[in-house]
Amino acid sequence: MTQRVYNFTAGPAMLPLPVLQRVHEEFFDFQGLGASIIEISHRSPEFEALLKETEGLLRELMDIPATYKVVFCHGGGQMQFSMVPLNLMGLKPAGKALYVESGLFSARAAEEAARYGVVTIAASSKDTGFDRIPWVNTDAVDRAASYFHLTTNNTVMGTRWNSFPSTDGVPLVGDATSEILSRPLDLRSFGALYAGAQKNLGPAGLAVVIIREDLLGHAHPLTPKLLNYTQLAHDGSLTNTVNTFAIYVTRLVLEWLKGEGGVAAIERVNERKAARVYRAVDRSGGFYRGLAQKEHRSVMNVTFDLSSPALQGRFLKEAGEAGLYALKGHSARGGLRASLYNAMPMAGAEALAGFMEEFQRRNG
Amino acid sequence: MTQRVYNFTAGPAMLPLPVLQRVHEEFFDFQGLGASIIEISHRSPEFEALLKETEGLLRELMDIPATYKVVFCHGGGQMQFSMVPLNLMGLKPAGKALYVESGLFSARAAEEAARYGVVTIAASSKDTGFDRIPWVNTDAVDRAASYFHLTTNNTVMGTRWNSFPSTDGVPLVGDATSEILSRPLDLRSFGALYAGAQKNLGPAGLAVVIIREDLLGHAHPLTPKLLNYTQLAHDGSLTNTVNTFAIYVTRLVLEWLKGEGGVAAIERVNERKAARVYRAVDRSGGFYRGLAQKEHRSVMNVTFDLSSPALQGRFLKEAGEAGLYALKGHSARGGLRASLYNAMPMAGAEALAGFMEEFQRRNG
Repeated sequence: MTQRVYNFTAGPAMLPLPVLQRVHEEFFDFQGLGASIIEISHRSPEFEALLKETEGLLRELMDIPATYKVVFCHGGGQMQFSMVPLNLMGLKPAGKALYVESGLFSARAAEEAARYGVVTIAASSKDTGFDRIPWVNTDAVDRAASYFHLTTNNTVMGTRWNSFPSTDGVPLVGDATSEILSRPLDLRSFGALYAGAQKNLGPAGLAVVIIREDLLGHAHPLTPKLLNYTQLAHDGSLTNTVNTFAIYVTRLVLEWLKGEGGVAAIERVNERKAARVYRAVDRSGGFYRGLAQKEHRSVMNVTFDLSSPALQGRFLKEAGEAGLYALKGHSARGGLRASLYNAMPMAGAEALAGFMEEFQRRNG
Repeated sequence: MTQRVYNFTAGPAMLPLPVLQRVHEEFFDFQGLGASIIEISHRSPEFEALLKETEGLLRELMDIPATYKVVFCHGGGQMQFSMVPLNLMGLKPAGKALYVESGLFSARAAEEAARYGVVTIAASSKDTGFDRIPWVNTDAVDRAASYFHLTTNNTVMGTRWNSFPSTDGVPLVGDATSEILSRPLDLRSFGALYAGAQKNLGPAGLAVVIIREDLLGHAHPLTPKLLNYTQLAHDGSLTNTVNTFAIYVTRLVLEWLKGEGGVAAIERVNERKAARVYRAVDRSGGFYRGLAQKEHRSVMNVTFDLSSPALQGRFLKEAGEAGLYALKGHSARGGLRASLYNAMPMAGAEALAGFMEEFQRRNG
């Protein structure tokens, strides 16, 4: 096995090494079947058991109440940008929804939802380049809205909600793609919470949706069968052939996380990792400049600029040579970004922060 | 590495051993990046190159004309049951489509399409339990229909079209999920051809769509962004994070197929494999009974019953002990089914046929 880099990509992202080792070890022979996990039917008893275990682990780790369904969907977080309005816009007769615009992906979610109903931007931080979570006037929440959508962690600019607005009975729908399982999230605050797999769960092409049962049953008549939460919940996600490999890896990731002590334990590690990198930014005397306002900073995606943009190419080149991979920011913003998902060990954050400090000494 | 079985599952199905070996070998380190293929961004130069190579190999192997776009979609063949009508029903003002009902999945495709327009069953073999491909009265094809849909190979009952009907200018749309790349298919006969990956291409959660450029641009306004062929073609399939692992394995499968001599060469092997198993059925004097009418038999899915249904449990048990895996038929029909996709070697068909003959000697 060759040297592994510290991989700071925003996703598809780094996975825990013990998970990769397990996939590698049993790749030719899943549970003694004489076939690979990617060669067996999604309706085989072995896979059906695996799917149930995956859901069970997720329920345990996230403390999901029994009144919520868990469904596995094709397509990642962005497929949910369509599925949420297709399934939930019809919850109330007005056919309207509220969206908070706190970054690139939340804006895309709102844009897609506008196909299916009347979308109102309840709050936005666009005016300051999405460097913060906008303030929501909870007194003004329209109770005729079918749901209220927000992105719990914003990957591009690196901000997150520390507490969630009270929406006066309007179901809160959260996109937790880039932070699911990184800190406890109380499901009881949400009508639905979803996440694409490719950051904290497993490989790409899969999303998990956790939805309160009473919100089912209101899909638009033109909802494609595989995009219908009610259908998927009824079929235990097996409406068609699911992304079996991604679910298999997700189960291994959940087992690994349980072994690490669960969500509360990994949250403590995540906070230490982020604090270490933010310290290198904040103590640089302006050599590095954080993109997000301090009180809104993400623990998963640390974003910053170099005060001298001309140095960015050298920074990325030398970081790469030091085994620090994929630190370039999202193309929509530029700059630098270190994604510190659950699989990133403390040593990776230490290595990055140390490199940043050393780079500053040589170039400051 | 343990003993591999001969895996006759209908899908997710057996993959070529050299492909699995390659995945295993480079699993921790893709192209010297120090990260696994499942840990890198779909927008990294390495993955973008891989995606282009995959499309290039598919174009070469299938001789796809330059006037056709190739897109990779989330969700397998059944997602196409929605995507086809969402994208193509609007091609003509009448908003209607013709479907041939030749099996379980073609019926499901028609049912789903009826959400989006007026669906007429142009021909059906339901009256004889889908044991044949129905005759199509090509003189009666409604030229006001937007498209004409058929399933080129029917997985459940094991039938296939040997030649395709002339549809008088109405674009033919083919579901080739269970036989893509197993025999030459002339794209010029089709307006669009699609296939879920999990039989002859790679792991589940991916579909390939090959579509004539002039059919783009007519999607229903409520089409979800990720289900819009025009959008996907515009974005080179990278509208969002694709199923990177499935595309990676698909590229390896295509390389393997090219090394085997391509589609015409594998077709000859496929015909020998199917002929060997059908011989065991046909020479059994009625001990085994083929489900499909002979002239409509599939080369990919060989289906049969035991004349004595009471023997089926023993057959499956002893076959399993002999390393012949997953011979149980689809739950909608029961009976036995041997799927002989491209990755099944001739030796697997020999082993199955030999077992069948021997089982008959002991139980006939």
